[in-house]
Amino acid sequence: MNKPSVPKGTRDFPPEEVVKRNYIFNIIKQVFQNHFFLPIETPSLEKLNTLNGKYGEEGDQLLFKILMRGEKFNKALKNSIVKQSNNDNDFSEEALRYDLTVPFARYIVQHQNDISFPFRRYQIQPVWRADRPQKGRYREFYQCDADIVGSDSLNSEVELITIITEVLNNLSLNNHTIFLNNRKVLFALIDSCGAKKYFRKITIIIDKLDKVGSEKVTEELQKTIPVKDCSILFNELFKLKSSENILIKWLESKIGHTADGKLGIEELNYVVNLSKKLGITNIKINLSLARGLDYYTGSIFEVVLNDYKMGSIVGGGRYDNLTQVFGQKDLSGVGISFGAERIYDVMNDLKLFPRDIMISPKFMVINQTSSYENGFKLCSYLRSLGHSCFIYLDQHKLKKQLKYANDNKVDTIVFINDDFNEQMSLEVKNMSSGDQKKLKLKDL
Amino acid sequence: MNKPSVPKGTRDFPPEEVVKRNYIFNIIKQVFQNHFFLPIETPSLEKLNTLNGKYGEEGDQLLFKILMRGEKFNKALKNSIVKQSNNDNDFSEEALRYDLTVPFARYIVQHQNDISFPFRRYQIQPVWRADRPQKGRYREFYQCDADIVGSDSLNSEVELITIITEVLNNLSLNNHTIFLNNRKVLFALIDSCGAKKYFRKITIIIDKLDKVGSEKVTEELQKTIPVKDCSILFNELFKLKSSENILIKWLESKIGHTADGKLGIEELNYVVNLSKKLGITNIKINLSLARGLDYYTGSIFEVVLNDYKMGSIVGGGRYDNLTQVFGQKDLSGVGISFGAERIYDVMNDLKLFPRDIMISPKFMVINQTSSYENGFKLCSYLRSLGHSCFIYLDQHKLKKQLKYANDNKVDTIVFINDDFNEQMSLEVKNMSSGDQKKLKLKDL
Repeated sequence: MNKPSVPKGTRDFPPEEVVKRNYIFNIIKQVFQNHFFLPIETPSLEKLNTLNGKYGEEGDQLLFKILMRGEKFNKALKNSIVKQSNNDNDFSEEALRYDLTVPFARYIVQHQNDISFPFRRYQIQPVWRADRPQKGRYREFYQCDADIVGSDSLNSEVELITIITEVLNNLSLNNHTIFLNNRKVLFALIDSCGAKKYFRKITIIIDKLDKVGSEKVTEELQKTIPVKDCSILFNELFKLKSSENILIKWLESKIGHTADGKLGIEELNYVVNLSKKLGITNIKINLSLARGLDYYTGSIFEVVLNDYKMGSIVGGGRYDNLTQVFGQKDLSGVGISFGAERIYDVMNDLKLFPRDIMISPKFMVINQTSSYENGFKLCSYLRSLGHSCFIYLDQHKLKKQLKYANDNKVDTIVFINDDFNEQMSLEVKNMSSGDQKKLKLKDL
Repeated sequence: MNKPSVPKGTRDFPPEEVVKRNYIFNIIKQVFQNHFFLPIETPSLEKLNTLNGKYGEEGDQLLFKILMRGEKFNKALKNSIVKQSNNDNDFSEEALRYDLTVPFARYIVQHQNDISFPFRRYQIQPVWRADRPQKGRYREFYQCDADIVGSDSLNSEVELITIITEVLNNLSLNNHTIFLNNRKVLFALIDSCGAKKYFRKITIIIDKLDKVGSEKVTEELQKTIPVKDCSILFNELFKLKSSENILIKWLESKIGHTADGKLGIEELNYVVNLSKKLGITNIKINLSLARGLDYYTGSIFEVVLNDYKMGSIVGGGRYDNLTQVFGQKDLSGVGISFGAERIYDVMNDLKLFPRDIMISPKFMVINQTSSYENGFKLCSYLRSLGHSCFIYLDQHKLKKQLKYANDNKVDTIVFINDDFNEQMSLEVKNMSSGDQKKLKLKDL
């Protein structure tokens, strides 16, 4: 029989990984809560029509869809044969969630009467994407999101940026840069050279700047976008020094006279300036930052580590129309999402986890009498004092019991034998020093 | 447009429910860890052949199967047409896990070389069953399992029983009964009247004793099981007083001479007696307890609340052959599973959650100057002192801001305005007393 295994792109987490992952989740959670974000949870499954069409064509194809059961399945199969169709949507009504944002938008609309806006919510749950698995990319992975919905204020962006800073510093990932851009600015720039209808295409191309360099991007713009001024404009942009003043002045000259452009520049300015005043000096305007998701309409940001080659570890942005598709207009929101899997990988690689986070028992009791009654009672007593403690359950050879204690990083072994009842005496062995001595229970 | 909603049998959890659910999970987790059980996590998805055939025919039909994508789907559809078959297994290679036990058995076999046995593991994760939803029964729900694998010792059962007691007492559910039975005893009893081959059927029938009463069960045994002595035997059993001595004596007279019977009685005796010596007086032998799952081979137990009408809130038992199906023999295990959803329902109903578990912010800052710089800095300062704190982000009317503070159970509002810079003075309003006063930052 073959050794059993897990599905492609999924993982088992042994204890030491669960503990490390929880260390990350707990730090994120603690910062969210200290900033008064409230936790919600949504089901793993959403109705297919809640998700379909929200992630672009490519995203839709990566949904894990649930196969219909019983009579529904039989009907779907019959229909497909009769209609000679091969649409897999006919075989499914539900799918695993692809991200936390669309379910959150659905949640807001569904529960709007119970929510006190601005709604500050966080959500730490797994999502599923049938992506081609590769290093650092999984088919089941956690997202850690915080969003503020129902506030237009740019202070929301600033608060989320302070949260990013706090979380990453608490994780010892201080050496990072927060890149900021604004979709309104991007839109005005692209509009200014008459390439409005290629907005999506262009943003996808320029988003690759970090990976492929400015020459390749300019080349691709020339080849793909049938508007000559477009590649000229971005080529000019790529050559600018990345100082805030120079960038802002250049933007003003190009788009300062348009409504979108003017607003976008103001927004960029406000967020950068207030962040800097709050001591966040590692924030930088990056006009080629575009972010993949279609729903962003204002500020967008991404965080990368300075001395570590890896994609962004945090991303986010403002969306003005996300709940509209579910029937609720005029509800602006802004959110961030921590890439917990990447953060885990880099922290592991750089050995940034504290040494003492693994669960290890203070006491292991080795029973050397025929009855286990006293051993169990001793454990229970030690636990009541706040120590983690267990009794070795089997009557194995001493050597085996000691090896087990050693493998499981037990701090102290307590031997209990026949003279416990009369004298309340125990023998105790410290596993790191190897010291062994007799003592009374009250002295333990 | 229709109001969006979640799939049948699934739920959104708003903040107050997440907090209450985490309260339960944390207590369970803490007790598990204090007894040195280590957490693992397995993927939500398992290969279909890992799950199929493990839960009986009925269970298999309740699996949430993942629909194949792309070319695989097209091929499956073509094949079904050519073969004129309508087997939904041809359209799926993966499914959502149905419980935590089978994935755990798969995990053990897959990672056996990295595990130090006896393996004490816990796992708190959701499972999915396409059951007909009804009150208290959901399609996505959490299981909280602890198992000891690789130990034959009956002390494992006793340790798990102490864990049950500790968890339920910590949750203020002290008023419960732990029912104990043993599959070997059941098997010997049924064998003794020549009905061995109806074992499964009989256990399903007698398991209903609590719900339908002894008369109905005897009747059903008479009707369904073509072995006359069977209903006579169980009718005799049902009439016994439930004192341990009487039950054990009766068992000895019926099955004490068979190998299975003798061993089963010894096991029952050991677990009950040691548990009682440890002060667990609410453990009771219940010979009609059968447990639904096929894989149990020894002790089985279930916990019910004494004064609250509801099914069992904890269940478990010993299984000797669970990993065998994945290729590893001779690995005995015993486990318990807390029904977190039912525990939540009863605790909610009986108002057993502590009053102060909801996340509520200590401070909300109301900004009354044009710049938010000082407000943000004040928040950050208060958080550094360990208080949860946030600044109201929008320039809304004061009344609206106060209402928000009230809705969100803010403890104290801090007003910051223009004289902060010169005098470091603030105005503070306690939300429960309504008291408002001016003070200096250092006196806050």
